[in-house]
Amino acid sequence: MSDVRVHNFSISLDGFATGAGQSADAPFGHAGERLHEWMFTTRFWHEMGGGREGGTGADHAFAAMHSAGIGAEIMGAGKFGPPGWQDDPDYKGAWGPNPPFHTPVFVLTHRPRPSIEMEGGTTYHFLDASPAEALKKAREAADGKDVRLGGGATMIRDFVAEGLVDHMHLVQVPIVLGRGVRIWDGLEAIEDVYDIEAVSTPSGVTHLTFTAKRR
Amino acid sequence: MSDVRVHNFSISLDGFATGAGQSADAPFGHAGERLHEWMFTTRFWHEMGGGREGGTGADHAFAAMHSAGIGAEIMGAGKFGPPGWQDDPDYKGAWGPNPPFHTPVFVLTHRPRPSIEMEGGTTYHFLDASPAEALKKAREAADGKDVRLGGGATMIRDFVAEGLVDHMHLVQVPIVLGRGVRIWDGLEAIEDVYDIEAVSTPSGVTHLTFTAKRR
Repeated sequence: MSDVRVHNFSISLDGFATGAGQSADAPFGHAGERLHEWMFTTRFWHEMGGGREGGTGADHAFAAMHSAGIGAEIMGAGKFGPPGWQDDPDYKGAWGPNPPFHTPVFVLTHRPRPSIEMEGGTTYHFLDASPAEALKKAREAADGKDVRLGGGATMIRDFVAEGLVDHMHLVQVPIVLGRGVRIWDGLEAIEDVYDIEAVSTPSGVTHLTFTAKRR
Repeated sequence: MSDVRVHNFSISLDGFATGAGQSADAPFGHAGERLHEWMFTTRFWHEMGGGREGGTGADHAFAAMHSAGIGAEIMGAGKFGPPGWQDDPDYKGAWGPNPPFHTPVFVLTHRPRPSIEMEGGTTYHFLDASPAEALKKAREAADGKDVRLGGGATMIRDFVAEGLVDHMHLVQVPIVLGRGVRIWDGLEAIEDVYDIEAVSTPSGVTHLTFTAKRR
């Protein structure tokens, strides 16, 4: 069976994946861009359409795992758009006309709407479904390829708690946010079911990989 | 002025320095020894009286900073003994007849008692004092050498919040405890006042050093 993977999911030292006060202008709240600066200096980000040419060191090596072999993504409502997007029937997501996913994307929301076809191969589908149900749909759409979980923290926690995640890559950034949405809540003893590796890099971040032991 | 330092302070991925349910039999609660296994395999630990011969790699290099140049330690009541030790007037601490401190040690407690002189140069003094007041006493006793903060998490947080800590060395262990006493609470934006480095080592832990920027 194909794998379920999490990539480039950035957290603070205290485990927050977003800060407090999320809005259209501040999708990560008071965290701003600080959780993702490590990625902006990679060749991976440049190839995704980012500005700088970027390096090909360790941060790039980890970041570039994001896309290879992925056939579909599942994301939470908060990644699709800022709070309240469900009230705008014409809203097409926060990721531009040519989103960086290039596969079917399943958006988890309690208020589903018709699918939206974007440029570049991304089609948004909207699901009010449990993690297992959403994964079944995404696996069908991925046609044998892997499924990526796009975040935020709440949906990743839910999928991990149900034992649905095969590989998880977190990136710990040396800041303390104090407030926001925390990845660790409810994941006590995750080391019993995952092999965990830590690799710090010269940019100052620490890459944490979780590989399911049952594999 | 002499420095105030924290060393070998081990935390879980989710930031807990002790687990829940601390007692005489389980000084770190449900965390058990897991937060400190990285240290038991170092030469430093062997030289402190631990069983194995131990290695001299990166974990040892970090661990060995613990003792050099230290003239006194300040510790919280929970490090001196398990909950309730204050009710035993003859209690002499959880660290044996020859404690591994070999300096004056100031124990913060709301119920002070007379000082106790132990073997090997350790003398326990008991203080009901603010962080600044305790530090003043410890500095006098340290006679120009540095002062080490021994933990637990609550007292370290209090000293950091008051800007009294010059150097802090945390060791992040790849387990998720879920419950206990967390180091990060109240330390939002610590990156503004400390330079932070992260170094992961082959044992699987990540050493985090915090150096005060004002220096």
